[in-house]
Amino acid sequence: MLTSDIQRSYKDRSVLVTGGLGFIGSNLVIALVQAGARVMVVDSSVQGCGANAFNLEPVCGDVDVFPFDIGDPEVERPLREADIIFNLAGEVSHIHSMLFPERDLRINTLAQLRFLEACRREAPGRRVVYASTRQVYGKPQYLPVDENHPLAPVDFNGVHECATAHYHYLLTRLNCIDAIVLRFTNVYGPRMAIQIPCQGVLSVFLRNAVRGEPITLYGDGTQFRDPIHVSDACEALLRAGAIKNPELRTLNVGGGSPVTLLEIANELSAQHCLPATEFRPFPAERARIDIGNYCSDSSASQTALQWRPVTDLCKGLRETLRYYDEHVTRYLQMGRPCNCPLGHR
Amino acid sequence: MLTSDIQRSYKDRSVLVTGGLGFIGSNLVIALVQAGARVMVVDSSVQGCGANAFNLEPVCGDVDVFPFDIGDPEVERPLREADIIFNLAGEVSHIHSMLFPERDLRINTLAQLRFLEACRREAPGRRVVYASTRQVYGKPQYLPVDENHPLAPVDFNGVHECATAHYHYLLTRLNCIDAIVLRFTNVYGPRMAIQIPCQGVLSVFLRNAVRGEPITLYGDGTQFRDPIHVSDACEALLRAGAIKNPELRTLNVGGGSPVTLLEIANELSAQHCLPATEFRPFPAERARIDIGNYCSDSSASQTALQWRPVTDLCKGLRETLRYYDEHVTRYLQMGRPCNCPLGHR
Repeated sequence: MLTSDIQRSYKDRSVLVTGGLGFIGSNLVIALVQAGARVMVVDSSVQGCGANAFNLEPVCGDVDVFPFDIGDPEVERPLREADIIFNLAGEVSHIHSMLFPERDLRINTLAQLRFLEACRREAPGRRVVYASTRQVYGKPQYLPVDENHPLAPVDFNGVHECATAHYHYLLTRLNCIDAIVLRFTNVYGPRMAIQIPCQGVLSVFLRNAVRGEPITLYGDGTQFRDPIHVSDACEALLRAGAIKNPELRTLNVGGGSPVTLLEIANELSAQHCLPATEFRPFPAERARIDIGNYCSDSSASQTALQWRPVTDLCKGLRETLRYYDEHVTRYLQMGRPCNCPLGHR
Repeated sequence: MLTSDIQRSYKDRSVLVTGGLGFIGSNLVIALVQAGARVMVVDSSVQGCGANAFNLEPVCGDVDVFPFDIGDPEVERPLREADIIFNLAGEVSHIHSMLFPERDLRINTLAQLRFLEACRREAPGRRVVYASTRQVYGKPQYLPVDENHPLAPVDFNGVHECATAHYHYLLTRLNCIDAIVLRFTNVYGPRMAIQIPCQGVLSVFLRNAVRGEPITLYGDGTQFRDPIHVSDACEALLRAGAIKNPELRTLNVGGGSPVTLLEIANELSAQHCLPATEFRPFPAERARIDIGNYCSDSSASQTALQWRPVTDLCKGLRETLRYYDEHVTRYLQMGRPCNCPLGHR
């Protein structure tokens, strides 16, 4: 639930959300509608990227959905009406980017370049909040990772997200737009594309749980992450959209409490009475882009955005499982294997 | 003149140079031929990027020139034969990148992605020396700038060079290639594309001098740079191509001695008896991407490559002017204005 001061600041504002049919995007759109904003979504439902029309079912009829690619010229029309832009479109899969690097460049960098050029023409000076990723840091050189950590991405997705973040900084420095880049750690919650393999470890765990399958851990499960619930991520996004004269243009947004993958697997297994967790050696294609342990230092965003994550992991996972149990046919076709829509193994 | 140990290491080696018709590329090709290497050049003479067939006139007949784009599939054939790859293809103009950002992305990132994917298939494990630029650092946060300086490019060219450097690191980490990235400061010397505006301040100064025109300085001329003569840059490239088991994958290559633009203008004016230097306010399109003062800390490359710049600036400028005076019709059409081949003002 949003805090009321932020809710008020969106009342009757015109807000554009790119990637608004996706996981974080749709949760943000729902929060914006609840806050009284007029919401436009640009989402071309790129195969493999997690768009799902059902995600917006709670606000169906309250949102204008434009089925354009963010790089298409048609994006100019909704842009002209936007007071604030949340730029969440993109492909998040590290594995997909390693298999199809040029596709990742096209989706995450070329289309973004075209979109931001349209922003500077049609929405000059507007706040643009870009949802980036901890993946730009690569394998941490120290923990927790703050915003000064060197950028050393270990996969093509990280390289391209890095370039697009630089576009945002560059156009802000040139006074063309007014951007803030949030670097998210592992976000989880309702509306993740758990039907698509290669969308991150928490998505895979949740799929296993919803299907009643044992969770598979690569290695011994002692690797840690700092997951953040999507409602906390959305609160950070909304605050980043609303703050005036930001001093910092890059802010880490993490869950704050490191937890091992084994602990997450155990919690999900207990909540959903799953068979015993299975342990396997790291597959080669994952080991080579693995970043080891990770947790964010989010103190800068907590100060700048007057925000902190409040959702307890156990409670967050329980609510998430309840969501998927209720809407399982909208996300999974039970009894069928989960093949990647891009057609690889 | 190359030091003899490095010369020997290239004897009878098969070497591929991308961008070998350009400024640094052609000087490198000539040095490689003199060292006894079998040299292949891939260069598609992209409009506006400085390729000039005359640049290779001294080694005409000794070099195989493939007129492909580095992103074309045909590049696989020369790649299969290459023992060492010098990757110098690209567009260096900051101004062009701001006018035509998508063109810059296509030339400096997309084509490089395709080329490096071809390298991993056809030349796995080969040394690739990538000529990058100090532009990836943006406006210096401290001087001299070492390799740990944050990457904060102030123009699209810098963003795209940064992404392509990350491709080299990524594929090296994955053991697909064995890359070293050199970050060059302002390189000058024979074979610069002085006919093309927007190729950097030293190119413009040299054009003025060759045409007998007064040099124009933006601001008061107290900005400093650390120019490096192309023969010193080539020595660093050749050493980077030859060293075994490099510890560092990124090395700054600068001239070492900061000098103001006014001092350079005065030196050229004195050497070529030019009319008095003119001072003008910074044009807006240049001021917004200007980086202020710059000089490199090249101590890491001097240690790793056992190299140091040896060409005195006055001597280097004199030799450069002599080259252009001798071959002026190959670079400038006297009496005609220098219009950008991309057709902008």
